[in-house]
Amino acid sequence: MLDEFLDRERESILGALTEWLRIPSISVDPARAADVRESARWCAAHMKAVGLEHVEILETAGHPAVYADWLHAAGAPTIVVYGHHDVQPVDPLPEWTTPPFEPTVRDGQLFARGAIDDKGQVLYHLAAVRGLLQETGRLPVNVKFLVEGEEEDGSRNFETLLQREQERYACDAVVVSDTAMLGEDEPSICTAMRGLLAFDVTIRTAEADLHSGSFGGAVPNAAHVAAHLVAALHDADRRVALPGFYDAVRPLTDAERRSFAAVPHSDEEFARVAGVHRLEGEAGATTLERIWSRPTAEVTGIGSGYAGDGVKTIVPATASLKVTFRLVADQDPSTIARGFEPWVREIAGAGVDVTVAPLGAVAPALTPVAHPTVAATARAIERVWGRAPLFTREGGSGPEEALARILERPVIYLGVGLPDDRIHAPNERAVLSQLWRGVLAVGELWTELGLLADEPDWKTQWRTP
Amino acid sequence: MLDEFLDRERESILGALTEWLRIPSISVDPARAADVRESARWCAAHMKAVGLEHVEILETAGHPAVYADWLHAAGAPTIVVYGHHDVQPVDPLPEWTTPPFEPTVRDGQLFARGAIDDKGQVLYHLAAVRGLLQETGRLPVNVKFLVEGEEEDGSRNFETLLQREQERYACDAVVVSDTAMLGEDEPSICTAMRGLLAFDVTIRTAEADLHSGSFGGAVPNAAHVAAHLVAALHDADRRVALPGFYDAVRPLTDAERRSFAAVPHSDEEFARVAGVHRLEGEAGATTLERIWSRPTAEVTGIGSGYAGDGVKTIVPATASLKVTFRLVADQDPSTIARGFEPWVREIAGAGVDVTVAPLGAVAPALTPVAHPTVAATARAIERVWGRAPLFTREGGSGPEEALARILERPVIYLGVGLPDDRIHAPNERAVLSQLWRGVLAVGELWTELGLLADEPDWKTQWRTP
Repeated sequence: MLDEFLDRERESILGALTEWLRIPSISVDPARAADVRESARWCAAHMKAVGLEHVEILETAGHPAVYADWLHAAGAPTIVVYGHHDVQPVDPLPEWTTPPFEPTVRDGQLFARGAIDDKGQVLYHLAAVRGLLQETGRLPVNVKFLVEGEEEDGSRNFETLLQREQERYACDAVVVSDTAMLGEDEPSICTAMRGLLAFDVTIRTAEADLHSGSFGGAVPNAAHVAAHLVAALHDADRRVALPGFYDAVRPLTDAERRSFAAVPHSDEEFARVAGVHRLEGEAGATTLERIWSRPTAEVTGIGSGYAGDGVKTIVPATASLKVTFRLVADQDPSTIARGFEPWVREIAGAGVDVTVAPLGAVAPALTPVAHPTVAATARAIERVWGRAPLFTREGGSGPEEALARILERPVIYLGVGLPDDRIHAPNERAVLSQLWRGVLAVGELWTELGLLADEPDWKTQWRTP
Repeated sequence: MLDEFLDRERESILGALTEWLRIPSISVDPARAADVRESARWCAAHMKAVGLEHVEILETAGHPAVYADWLHAAGAPTIVVYGHHDVQPVDPLPEWTTPPFEPTVRDGQLFARGAIDDKGQVLYHLAAVRGLLQETGRLPVNVKFLVEGEEEDGSRNFETLLQREQERYACDAVVVSDTAMLGEDEPSICTAMRGLLAFDVTIRTAEADLHSGSFGGAVPNAAHVAAHLVAALHDADRRVALPGFYDAVRPLTDAERRSFAAVPHSDEEFARVAGVHRLEGEAGATTLERIWSRPTAEVTGIGSGYAGDGVKTIVPATASLKVTFRLVADQDPSTIARGFEPWVREIAGAGVDVTVAPLGAVAPALTPVAHPTVAATARAIERVWGRAPLFTREGGSGPEEALARILERPVIYLGVGLPDDRIHAPNERAVLSQLWRGVLAVGELWTELGLLADEPDWKTQWRTP
């Protein structure tokens, strides 16, 4: 029945998403705080419009989240739907074909910052609510929405929010819609996400920049110190050189290796999608292992001295680095974090001022392929895409771990993104047909989850063996 | 007689300099082109006001220079005075105690961008012209001014300008006022400057920034490639690792070593002035050798990814680096330049797009301590400072080499800057007493040079033995 609704309402759904995408809700940019709030308000208003109830802006110490529910499916399970309404920064702006906050449809794709990460994925849930209520007057499950406003800023206040709202979010399972599939015709379900640990490292070698003629060659150069740090992050095998970094990494099981092997993958195609001319990474690991089951260190930003037009003949006195780590089960972010600052100080050496500020930590998450909720998701996806999904992992990081830990319920992933959606990069897009399938998949998934009510133990989380 | 003039006119001289310093003539910033031109106009107007003749703005393909002369000392030598009216950029702006283009006097020091580098040093020449003409109605020598507008941008068009104006600038010797002394009570004369070679290196590893979760660990990271390049610039002994870099470096003679040894120097004091907590540089070289007679490589700027507030979870696709080399006699900038790009490509490796754009080249310059013009300068300085000057070198680079080569005349250095004037850095300053002594020293030097007219061979340049 959502088919017919969709046939009538594609334009209105797209119109609503376009409105939302026009709001530049960049959570890492303090100057955009009012926009993030406006995005939360828009979301709340739209939730009311589709028929959700108890809509409420949830304040945090940072940007607000949004709550809404529909709780009239007596006896049916209760599902928390998680997504986020904040977006990534947009620079380098000149590389966008059309402006990031002027959503534009070209060739069946919607181009805008947040089109797929994650406003588009939240919106197909809201469209499904509207469609089901319009067509049937009810939903097959009870639903509670949690649309966060700080996911792209490391979900700084998410855990505090969840702790505070634990009771409000009591549920039987959590559906996260912030992931991607292998392809339009290769549906898949994510079963794990990497964790994230991020630091702001600042280096000061002198009180002020020095003239490179008068002092160059005899004093430390902050850009050189920063570069040495970055170069020292990896050894010759491109393994992360931080002492003890791999100690807690859980090796893949044979079953996991088989599920990796079942996933169609071509290094050539991966490189094409990435837009790179060579692949590189940890020695002895395949590309899928490198992005799914192996931890990494990536410098995501570096700045020192004068990088504008022309040349400024200085020895830079300061440098700043953003150092991030992707973590995998069972690495503990706080253990890794404890080792990082001493390591930085050792590499920088005496006589250089170093500050290391944490920019957020997310533990890695792993969900069992064998869990009943995953099987339910697989049936829903097969019905919409016409093919049984494969099981994948996601190299990215989200607040899934906190959801599972605090709500004590299984977390499942329904995500319709595609590998070349360019999330976090210029020209982010959503493939429209995937968004429409998302609406249908939500209907199927909720129906499936409604049927699980009678199965024993389905609300029980999978634990590390 | 300039003493009395100075006693009367300190305020008016300072007032004129202050006016000039208010013009933000930053030559590397294309947005400041009109300000550089305004600075040239101010200089030309002031030259007329002090009594110089044939004042003219000299156009170049970039920013304009200024010409003026006084040619009524029949039979006396003709001296070209070189300085520059453009200034360095001012970032990091927040580190300035008072705004860079609002000149402020505190504790006998004038704080402003360009206060000593180089508007202040040009202005004491113009004050001397005014004073001498006012007090005596004449100058002891014929004088031609050449005040450049692109010195801080690598003197891009200076050589072309000099070639074109070679006849206009025919002279017997060149006085450059753009250097510093050891201290207020330690007068000194510069006898050499290092050359400069600068490059803009850009690195592209992918078409766009990539999500560090989806791709991180399996693709090249432009920030990592840039860091590897910077780290590879030096070997473990902190020698520049570019192949053949040291081949043409002329070793110090015993006489040069003795003149270095006569210069009072303390590493502790040098570190204090630099505002650093450790010194580092080429193994086996002293600090003075490192800044005066040894070539260096310094990265003066680096930028990649997102370095603003918070963290952007990307694998940066691009990085840019400013790589500069200070060169010493007899390194040839074009030989070094030819070797740089292939070296960068080799370090970056296949599959990474690299562009290397030259940002200017200045050959090293060396002037003989034994030359009659240097002895004349020494007498002039001794008379004003009350002490015989020591002979130093300057680690910085200027267009002196082109002046010597094209005008085929000896270049001598009269500079009253001090080591902690913070040129090229926030809170640049000029010590006012040094500027007043500069006015007097110009008068003494011109008188001394007037007396050289009868000495044989004094116009002959020193050649490499």
